[in-house]
Amino acid sequence: MATIKDVAARAGVSLGTASRVLSGSSQTSPDSRSRVLAAAAELGYIANGPARSLRRSRTDVLGLLVSDIRNPFFSELAHAAEQEARHHGYTMLLANANEDAEQADAYLRTFASQRIDGLLFSPQGTVSPQLAATLASGLPLVFLNRTIEGVDAPLYGTDNAEGVGHVLAWLRQRGHRDVAFIGGPDTISTGAERRAAYLAGREKHGISTDDRLLDAGDFLASGAAEAMCRVIDRGVPFTAVFGANGLTTLGAVRALRERLGAEQAARIEVVSFDDLDWFEFASPPISAVRNDASSIGRLGVRGLVDLLAGRGAPGRRIATSFVDRSRRGVQ
Amino acid sequence: MATIKDVAARAGVSLGTASRVLSGSSQTSPDSRSRVLAAAAELGYIANGPARSLRRSRTDVLGLLVSDIRNPFFSELAHAAEQEARHHGYTMLLANANEDAEQADAYLRTFASQRIDGLLFSPQGTVSPQLAATLASGLPLVFLNRTIEGVDAPLYGTDNAEGVGHVLAWLRQRGHRDVAFIGGPDTISTGAERRAAYLAGREKHGISTDDRLLDAGDFLASGAAEAMCRVIDRGVPFTAVFGANGLTTLGAVRALRERLGAEQAARIEVVSFDDLDWFEFASPPISAVRNDASSIGRLGVRGLVDLLAGRGAPGRRIATSFVDRSRRGVQ
Repeated sequence: MATIKDVAARAGVSLGTASRVLSGSSQTSPDSRSRVLAAAAELGYIANGPARSLRRSRTDVLGLLVSDIRNPFFSELAHAAEQEARHHGYTMLLANANEDAEQADAYLRTFASQRIDGLLFSPQGTVSPQLAATLASGLPLVFLNRTIEGVDAPLYGTDNAEGVGHVLAWLRQRGHRDVAFIGGPDTISTGAERRAAYLAGREKHGISTDDRLLDAGDFLASGAAEAMCRVIDRGVPFTAVFGANGLTTLGAVRALRERLGAEQAARIEVVSFDDLDWFEFASPPISAVRNDASSIGRLGVRGLVDLLAGRGAPGRRIATSFVDRSRRGVQ
Repeated sequence: MATIKDVAARAGVSLGTASRVLSGSSQTSPDSRSRVLAAAAELGYIANGPARSLRRSRTDVLGLLVSDIRNPFFSELAHAAEQEARHHGYTMLLANANEDAEQADAYLRTFASQRIDGLLFSPQGTVSPQLAATLASGLPLVFLNRTIEGVDAPLYGTDNAEGVGHVLAWLRQRGHRDVAFIGGPDTISTGAERRAAYLAGREKHGISTDDRLLDAGDFLASGAAEAMCRVIDRGVPFTAVFGANGLTTLGAVRALRERLGAEQAARIEVVSFDDLDWFEFASPPISAVRNDASSIGRLGVRGLVDLLAGRGAPGRRIATSFVDRSRRGVQ
């Protein structure tokens, strides 16, 4: 089997250069990089990861455990985090908890046994036994977008209070008083923070405080549709709906159209936390808080790289923007 | 540091049971599973993956390298594949090529050095040096949805010819003669197969054979929008658009609305390969080939598990269905 020395000789570079290229370091020239990779491929060289990591006690692999890879927010975040990790010489392996705490635990265990160098994590809500073990092991960890109270790890996430502030200001400007709010689980920090910001601000913005207009789903389309139906069934009229994340808004719009018909549903304005591809095509178009998933992913990786280098990582709330599509609407 | 013997003693189970639970085997009772996991968490036990894999020469980890995790088809496929892998006692690590052959190569290298047991792969198009090295290493591999000509590995993927057949029949039934076709890259097997099936069938279905109505993007929204604009600029009128994957349709619809305005764009019927969440909300609603991403993911994992067990895996084309939303449309 070819060794790294064979690769360096074939490529005509030093052993150190070959090693840097093959370990994914960014401190190599494009020319030596392409020669080393070509030589490695020609010789069928395969780095022995497990043996190497026992010697060096690092793997240059980061783990990213997201809540739901089918949620466009998380797939965008994962994409950006992975690009940033590669920029710093790390490979990023992804795992998907599917909003399921038990599945998250199984992946925490896998990542621990694969000896990743650090973990980026969007948690499901509480400290599970496996998360406690992961924290106790001293694995460097940052939270992405969701945090767990009492756990001492930096959070890189959306500024939820600011985002909800955009929505409240828009609702007032559009003259909505009766607004249905479809939230997410209170056990997830983003669900709790968005709901708290909405409740704290609604009266000041001239919005009804009738709690029959409030309900919550599971941050997935199906649970949100059920929550929307419960609000409709309570019979309190409303002129606008606020969905607390993208898939919640999808479920709410589906329920409105199924229960009220497309024509009557089109008289209700919808506003969303998270901006999705299709909001511009809806009737009327859906205005939305644009959650900066890319920045969250990138800054989270930089924070983890700082922790790995022994520097501090303070965490950060990332600002949102608001996309007002109402002027192009039918109202 | 706690050993597996300590965990077994604390949990009150045999060493074999503790080992099976901690290696993720499905052949354990729920009761012993929960006791072993609780004991492992209490004792801070962490399996030594790299050391273990050198001894056993397997890791119980499968790799899944998808083309673009932001494409809902692949995030759905990844989700289903991961559930199926867990069912068979494997952990699935995901990597995202972002439709970039060089990035795909970097992940093939990482997976090789991490010593995964097998690979599920949606390739970018051609045999790269790193893919050649991966194939030469004998790593069990199945292709998901996309294949590379001349590579001897089973393919689990959509029946593209059958799916395009649905679209052609629908176009004829709706009376469309002038149809714009926005395809994907011919270097990707799905792009080539869908285009070939469309070209072979269009005349028989009464569809114009004017090649100025054909163009192709990159299977992402931006490239498809540019292709749609090129067709518009050629000035040949059309009454329908066929987008060759979900993101292609998104880009085409965006371009139609930007170039023609929402009102005139709504007079053009759109049909898509891949069904997306929002197609029911579009004006008019978009009919689509439903690509069974979940079955492709699940059957691909079963094929890989068969290869790992030394059994044959013949590959399989998975049937599509067609969602006709035209009756609810405005026409």
